[in-house]
Amino acid sequence: MKVAVVMGSKSDLELVRGALDTLDSFGVGYCARVISAHRTPAEAAAFAREIDESDEYQVVICAAGMAAHLGGVLASYTTKPIVAIPVPSAPFGAADALLSIVQMPPGVPVAAVTAGKAGGKNAALYAIGILALSDKTLAAKLRDFRKKQHDQVLAADAELQKELGGK
Amino acid sequence: MKVAVVMGSKSDLELVRGALDTLDSFGVGYCARVISAHRTPAEAAAFAREIDESDEYQVVICAAGMAAHLGGVLASYTTKPIVAIPVPSAPFGAADALLSIVQMPPGVPVAAVTAGKAGGKNAALYAIGILALSDKTLAAKLRDFRKKQHDQVLAADAELQKELGGK
Amino acid sequence: MKVAVVMGSKSDLELVRGALDTLDSFGVGYCARVISAHRTPAEAAAFAREIDESDEYQVVICAAGMAAHLGGVLASYTTKPIVAIPVPSAPFGAADALLSIVQMPPGVPVAAVTAGKAGGKNAALYAIGILALSDKTLAAKLRDFRKKQHDQVLAADAELQKELGGK
Amino acid sequence: MKVAVVMGSKSDLELVRGALDTLDSFGVGYCARVISAHRTPAEAAAFAREIDESDEYQVVICAAGMAAHLGGVLASYTTKPIVAIPVPSAPFGAADALLSIVQMPPGVPVAAVTAGKAGGKNAALYAIGILALSDKTLAAKLRDFRKKQHDQVLAADAELQKELGGK
Amino acid sequence: MKVAVVMGSKSDLELVRGALDTLDSFGVGYCARVISAHRTPAEAAAFAREIDESDEYQVVICAAGMAAHLGGVLASYTTKPIVAIPVPSAPFGAADALLSIVQMPPGVPVAAVTAGKAGGKNAALYAIGILALSDKTLAAKLRDFRKKQHDQVLAADAELQKELGGK
Amino acid sequence: MKVAVVMGSKSDLELVRGALDTLDSFGVGYCARVISAHRTPAEAAAFAREIDESDEYQVVICAAGMAAHLGGVLASYTTKPIVAIPVPSAPFGAADALLSIVQMPPGVPVAAVTAGKAGGKNAALYAIGILALSDKTLAAKLRDFRKKQHDQVLAADAELQKELGGK
Amino acid sequence: MKVAVVMGSKSDLELVRGALDTLDSFGVGYCARVISAHRTPAEAAAFAREIDESDEYQVVICAAGMAAHLGGVLASYTTKPIVAIPVPSAPFGAADALLSIVQMPPGVPVAAVTAGKAGGKNAALYAIGILALSDKTLAAKLRDFRKKQHDQVLAADAELQKELGGK
Amino acid sequence: MKVAVVMGSKSDLELVRGALDTLDSFGVGYCARVISAHRTPAEAAAFAREIDESDEYQVVICAAGMAAHLGGVLASYTTKPIVAIPVPSAPFGAADALLSIVQMPPGVPVAAVTAGKAGGKNAALYAIGILALSDKTLAAKLRDFRKKQHDQVLAADAELQKELGGK
Repeated sequence: MKVAVVMGSKSDLELVRGALDTLDSFGVGYCARVISAHRTPAEAAAFAREIDESDEYQVVICAAGMAAHLGGVLASYTTKPIVAIPVPSAPFGAADALLSIVQMPPGVPVAAVTAGKAGGKNAALYAIGILALSDKTLAAKLRDFRKKQHDQVLAADAELQKELGGK
Repeated sequence: MKVAVVMGSKSDLELVRGALDTLDSFGVGYCARVISAHRTPAEAAAFAREIDESDEYQVVICAAGMAAHLGGVLASYTTKPIVAIPVPSAPFGAADALLSIVQMPPGVPVAAVTAGKAGGKNAALYAIGILALSDKTLAAKLRDFRKKQHDQVLAADAELQKELGGK
Repeated sequence: MKVAVVMGSKSDLELVRGALDTLDSFGVGYCARVISAHRTPAEAAAFAREIDESDEYQVVICAAGMAAHLGGVLASYTTKPIVAIPVPSAPFGAADALLSIVQMPPGVPVAAVTAGKAGGKNAALYAIGILALSDKTLAAKLRDFRKKQHDQVLAADAELQKELGGK
Repeated sequence: MKVAVVMGSKSDLELVRGALDTLDSFGVGYCARVISAHRTPAEAAAFAREIDESDEYQVVICAAGMAAHLGGVLASYTTKPIVAIPVPSAPFGAADALLSIVQMPPGVPVAAVTAGKAGGKNAALYAIGILALSDKTLAAKLRDFRKKQHDQVLAADAELQKELGGK
Repeated sequence: MKVAVVMGSKSDLELVRGALDTLDSFGVGYCARVISAHRTPAEAAAFAREIDESDEYQVVICAAGMAAHLGGVLASYTTKPIVAIPVPSAPFGAADALLSIVQMPPGVPVAAVTAGKAGGKNAALYAIGILALSDKTLAAKLRDFRKKQHDQVLAADAELQKELGGK
Repeated sequence: MKVAVVMGSKSDLELVRGALDTLDSFGVGYCARVISAHRTPAEAAAFAREIDESDEYQVVICAAGMAAHLGGVLASYTTKPIVAIPVPSAPFGAADALLSIVQMPPGVPVAAVTAGKAGGKNAALYAIGILALSDKTLAAKLRDFRKKQHDQVLAADAELQKELGGK
Repeated sequence: MKVAVVMGSKSDLELVRGALDTLDSFGVGYCARVISAHRTPAEAAAFAREIDESDEYQVVICAAGMAAHLGGVLASYTTKPIVAIPVPSAPFGAADALLSIVQMPPGVPVAAVTAGKAGGKNAALYAIGILALSDKTLAAKLRDFRKKQHDQVLAADAELQKELGGK
Repeated sequence: MKVAVVMGSKSDLELVRGALDTLDSFGVGYCARVISAHRTPAEAAAFAREIDESDEYQVVICAAGMAAHLGGVLASYTTKPIVAIPVPSAPFGAADALLSIVQMPPGVPVAAVTAGKAGGKNAALYAIGILALSDKTLAAKLRDFRKKQHDQVLAADAELQKELGGK
């Protein structure tokens, strides 16, 4: 259990799934929790304190939309790095979530990655990047991942050349 | 002590002053506190619980800028009405504060009034409007206030007519 | 009849339904009206004056979209607290409604809650929070509601643990 | 008295001055009033009705900032054309005023011109354009104005050529 | 032929239809044209000059989206009042069209009404409001229209009372 | 005379100066003109046609703010590449100018570079990049410029290392 | 091979197709590549250097969405003109892509055209406009294209007159 | 040397100073560099590769404004965690920088903290939070920092009570 993945509502699971799948594919242990900053504030505080004191948890990923206070509430009880995914929702897209996450006052940082589905994957990769600092195997896997990703672009380019080849 | 006025930082006092002065002018008792959602989360929770249980406090006014979580954090521990003032700050004006305040998830409302200095006064008037529901004297004062305000516009109009009268 | 629920157009009823259902579930009496600030201004003024003078009405909930003047127009005739729901509409999402509601000039506050469907529910809960200040039974119901809501998050979390349990 | 110029607060006079000066320079009679949609709603309604019934007033210019309801409130009592100037104010620039003016619901139009100082002049010119439809002298003056404006640009260009002539 | 209705592309006809239908229902003659500011600039200039010189045309309605220059281009050749409808389009909603229309420099005003479908109707009503200044029959029709619109809101309210009557 | 530099108002000269100075420093001939899309539309059309037919002019740089139609108006009469600088102005920053420039309809492109002062320089560099396609000397100068710019960053870095060296 | 068309992902091909089709219809040779600024940075650098040194490539068209760095990354290695298409994506529309493209620092310009599908076509037309500076045949084709486009608007107008003819 | 602090221009040093001072106060070694993604791309790539391969560097802090590609360019060559500070600049505030940083495509994350001066401090604290995962002394210092910060809020509150005490 290296990563604590927290979502404000179970309806965020679809987006969070991208994070969990990525963690799984890197063999990184995690616990995933539904905890609401506003509906279960005491549980949020308690879990953030547990994260802070535990040697197990290294990074927190959290997903929240609208007035996305979850990252900030957790950050107020722990100094462990929090990577937050702005969850898009009508009618403000993800402007509300992004600003609610990123504009933390001096002293209590929360970091935001890409809004939406891409953010699920990117939050996991960012967390893995942190874990990889003290885990050479993981660092190697991350480089492999980047290499594969790189090769997929080359493959897509090759495929495009074929498609356009007739010209 | 009917109104709890909470600001996230003492630097918000200038803006909050408009609220305190208005409460003073209506003879409404209040307590004003500097409590940070992120730097003193336990105190924020404790004070919100105190507000919730106390028969004294009826309304909460809070002022916060940037990722303005203060209203939401207080609301997560009390069902008393919270009136929040979006405090403007560079570089996002008050878009960050307004969206962080108003876009609360279903179940835990926080209400926003005008951003900035006008919001200081309006938050107090809104709180007084709530208190006036069960206080006929206060209701009368509020009507008087509105009457005076109305007359000031008439006076400004009269003054304008004089200035333009030469035409 | 404690709450006056006003919508600018009958097409807002779908969103307002969330407010009415919530009021119903708390046993709070209300009257719901279709009154347009711009198409029936005299009726809007008359109803706002009636609300102002009546001992029955305590809070106004109003729903309006686009250039959402309804809250402001009602507020210009009554000092009772007005809780406004920004109704989203194309092409500006709810930016037009939110700013039209919240940016009232000093002296005549209107308070905004969450834009859209969540706002229907939240406006009702906010109104109930105001009514609960002088109604202990209602205050208890509100605490129960929060408790249930809290438990639903715990249940969702438990369910998630089961789903992920195989890992 | 062909044009009714209404401002929500005497502090808008500076911006409105551009409109008054333009009307003066075209010899168009006007009355200028400070009337607040929210602080003097009955007067706003009464004046709008007077405008509507009067044969004198042809066009309304109004200037309002923040939640700029003034144009909409006047429009709800008269079908005479209303030209509104979005008055900029912190912290939302003129986005709040512009959207509050322009996003009127179907059936009750208000028209917006340029936000800010340029809008003072443009509102007057637009009003004059309307009056000129039934006033050939005014139409000629408007063409003259355009001609002069055109010549000023040519003069500025000539001046620039001189300045850069050494090259 | 009192109103010239100009659209930048025939694809705007659907939105413009609301304007044409409204003009028809008031018995106001119009001509509707597809003229592009950028694809047929000479025709745009020629038509604007024709409008300017003709005694027939009194008002111009124009509909354009994206970088909506059509109103400004027409206004540069005529001083007759131009009412522009911001046509929404992806990906900027109508922010691009609204700002391109309304932010005209001092000296050459264009007025914007509601963005989108409601704007089709409102542009026509605004044009009719201008024509009604010198046409008492039209003014009476406009009052009737407002009266009907007013009664429709009352009817919708009555209908709502029936629906909720069981409570 | 390779580049036509057009500004909508002489007040834009300050910003345009950055473009002229850059062209000067590369020895690229230009003519600079004050031409307003809205106040001198016929001159704008005539100059755009002249640019289109002339073998001399290769690129157009234009600077305009607010509803920045200048680029689009010129583009409607010439197919030569137009590089537009969004000129910032209150109260919308450069959002109005940028969207008015860039959101041209299919068929008549205008290209935007950086808003504001940086845009003056960048528009010139972009124009020079186009001219350099058929002018090897200019291409060499452009590479030199890039080289110098690159070295300035290295120098700034070296300077920083000295300043921080004490640590 | 005059134009290098680069897209950040093969999923951009649909939008890019508009550019390719337009280049095809003008008989302009191009190569189209999938190269990611972030996933294949070395390839991006290499290809930009190749473009810079080659006499063949004259213009670069690039399409990228979200944090659209592709244009900037290519521009950092070549001074050839880069025309970038902001690719829209949820949840920020194309605001993220447009600002990421256009707001390049002084010294390294990238030019943006219309966001979205219209941008595909416009980027190609802009590139063709650059190529046409030294290719009279292409210049003639571009004029023909504009003429056809012009005639299509006239045809659409004629069609509209027929449809409305009954009135 | 645990943290690489990179700024796009030496003019960013003022803002970056907050990060350096914070790192100093925690005794965390860093190197600070001026490297431009666009003006020194090869150096940016080289330094990012050096960071990636070095056992010394653990975290990258970067500060960039406008089209803030620096974080993304570095991230394309290293998987070490990058914490980016959106540097505000006219005329888009920090919207351009924030979106250019945060909206990275799936696979290559960059994380953003608070825009502006507060971001300088928060980026350092976030980096320290990452380093503290494997450095108990640093973790203790971070807890101390939070404690002091907490106490400063209490002190500010106490001071406020004194100031308001007379009431």
